[in-house]
Parts: sequence; C-alpha cells; structure tokens
Amino acid sequence: MSAFPEPLLRCLEELQKLPGIGPKSAQRILFALLDRGQEPALALARSLESLARSVERCPACRAYRETGRPCLLCEDPRRDRSLLCVVESAADVLLIEATGEYSGLYHVLHGLLSPMRGVHAEHLGVDAIEARLSGGEIREIILATPPTAEGEATASFLASLLAERGAAVSRIAFGMPVGADFQFVDAQTLGRSLSGRKTMAG
Amino acid sequence: MSAFPEPLLRCLEELQKLPGIGPKSAQRILFALLDRGQEPALALARSLESLARSVERCPACRAYRETGRPCLLCEDPRRDRSLLCVVESAADVLLIEATGEYSGLYHVLHGLLSPMRGVHAEHLGVDAIEARLSGGEIREIILATPPTAEGEATASFLASLLAERGAAVSRIAFGMPVGADFQFVDAQTLGRSLSGRKTMAG
Repeated sequence: MSAFPEPLLRCLEELQKLPGIGPKSAQRILFALLDRGQEPALALARSLESLARSVERCPACRAYRETGRPCLLCEDPRRDRSLLCVVESAADVLLIEATGEYSGLYHVLHGLLSPMRGVHAEHLGVDAIEARLSGGEIREIILATPPTAEGEATASFLASLLAERGAAVSRIAFGMPVGADFQFVDAQTLGRSLSGRKTMAG
Repeated sequence: MSAFPEPLLRCLEELQKLPGIGPKSAQRILFALLDRGQEPALALARSLESLARSVERCPACRAYRETGRPCLLCEDPRRDRSLLCVVESAADVLLIEATGEYSGLYHVLHGLLSPMRGVHAEHLGVDAIEARLSGGEIREIILATPPTAEGEATASFLASLLAERGAAVSRIAFGMPVGADFQFVDAQTLGRSLSGRKTMAG
C-alpha cells in the first residue's frame, strides 16, 4: 500500500469507516473519484462539511433541522399536530414520508430499548414525548417501531409509560406484505395477519 | 424528502453519485455520520479535499502520486527497473503489490480497448510505455490485463505493438485458482489450465 501517496491512503481509510463500505468498495469509490477529476470529490467534501456544521438534531422531534432554524417537520403548519408517530431512526421518517399516508408529527428514538447493549429509556428521548403531551394537542401516539423483539419491547414499554396521559396509543399493523405470496411468507407473519384480521362485511 | 434540511439532502445526493452507493446505502451512511457527531464527517471531508487537491496521475506510470512529488512506484530505487507490468486500473496495482511477488514498475492503462465504448489505443497511454522502452532499461513487459474478451484483445494489441522493441512481452498465467475444486471451475478455466501445463519431471 505504500506504493500510493499518503493523501490517497488516508482517504481510503476514512471511506472504510463508513457503514457498509469494505476495503473493495472504498477502493472502487476512491479510484472513481480520482478518475472523475477534482470537482466531484470537492463537491462531496463541501456537502459533508456543510452536513457536519449546519445540521443538528431538533430537540423536539429528534430528527434533523438546519442548525438554529425551525424544524421542517415540527414547524410546518400543514402538519396534523394531533398525531405523533414514534420511529426508531431518522431513515424511517423518510420511508413514512414516502408513503404519503401520514402528515402528523414525529419522534425519533435513535435506537430501541436493549438492556444488553446498554440502551435504556433515557436514550430514547422519552422526555421530549412527555413534553409534547403536556402541550395537550396530541390525540394519538402511533408506535411505529419494527416487529422485532427489541421493537416490540420498546413499543410495550412506551405504551405502558404513555397510557393514561390523555392520548390514545396505537401500534402499526403487521400482516402480509402487499403483493406477497403465501408460499413466501413466514409463519409468524401469517399468524399476525390472521390474528389482526378485519371485518369486511356482515 | 422536504421534511429534512437542504444540507442533509444535498449530502445524500452527493453520496448517491458514488459507485455502488444506492439510495439506501447513502441514507445509512448519512445517518451514521450524523449519529457520530461532527468530527468523522469533517475528517472524511478533509481527506476528500486533500485527495482532490494533492493527488495526481504520474505521467510515467499513470498511477497516482502526490502532486508535484516523486512517484512512489517509479522513483523507488529498490524496484526492479527491468520489469514493467501493464494493468487495467490503479486498483490492480494494490492487488499485485499485496501478492508480494512483484517489485518491478507499472503502467496503468485506465481502461481496456473497446472500440464499441470508444476506448482506443490513445486512451491507454501507450506513448508512456514507448517512452519507457526508449530508456532501454526494460527487459520484460508483463501484460496483466484480465482474461476477458477486452482484456485479451488489449493484451494482443499491446503484444504486437511492442514486439521487436527490444523487450520480451509476457502474459500472466491463467488456470485453476489456488484451492479451487474441479467441480466448481468452469470449462474455459480448466481448458486454459490444461493448455498452459508445465513439465514437472522427466
């Protein structure tokens, strides 16, 4: 590796710190950037610097806002301020926004309860949810954590904590994915699909 | 997507321009950087800026050197200046260096002949190879392009162009990968392994 100059090796090393980027992907990215000339690498560098310097967590929803500016999620007057959707990560906000099915507020947990990995209630920003509830506008809290052991445990914990705070607490529905074939769906999913059935007629 | 601030969206866009990074990987990288705080994103930004501003192609071997500084491959006095290994990409130099089997000079083609995709001889820096040969030190040129149609065509082209220039021209060996099982090797590879056999005794 010493056949290449130090700035190249350092960049290779920094790229490998990114999630999902192994040595081969880092090399591919690095040599592609070198092939493309200065400008694409500088544009990426500028965007990373601006990300680091001018994006911060919103203290209310814990998603991201431009530093010191109003949060586009919390301050948008077109949003339904009676609904609060609780998600594991900011990436989940992007997914839910893409559905077009939701226009309420969000709370990003930035994790799921996991005593084994040292993630406790205080890391999930429960105080921010409680502060929102004190405002009195929230009518329903939708728990949209994933249907995994940690996701379910987190949902149960939040449901009991937030019960009797004047807002309904709901859980997103689990069942057959749309377009899925019975042959390719696991028994647990099919079980949840049956137990969560809805009346169609009669 | 307009739920997130502009610097975040711009960074997401820049990340997606990298090879092998789709929308999901870009999101994963971006939110990981935001979670890690300012410093990792700034370190990556600095390394990219330094890559763009202080790394350039060496005009002799066409790998990379620190701008205006001696090339670590071409100028290392411990290297065997009688051997020249011709490779498709700078990434191949890293792979060959990792074998520990080679300590000669390199020539990086930055592509393979492909008239269909508009890659012609002049893009491969053949003039730089010829300039090296004029120096009179090179005794052997090793063609280490891959065993694909384009790799073979490029090797054949270079072999006929460089014949009778005073240096031997060789091609890397093709055959069974070390540790491979006959059952999992394709017929072409096995064929090359047979036709390229070497005498062991007698």
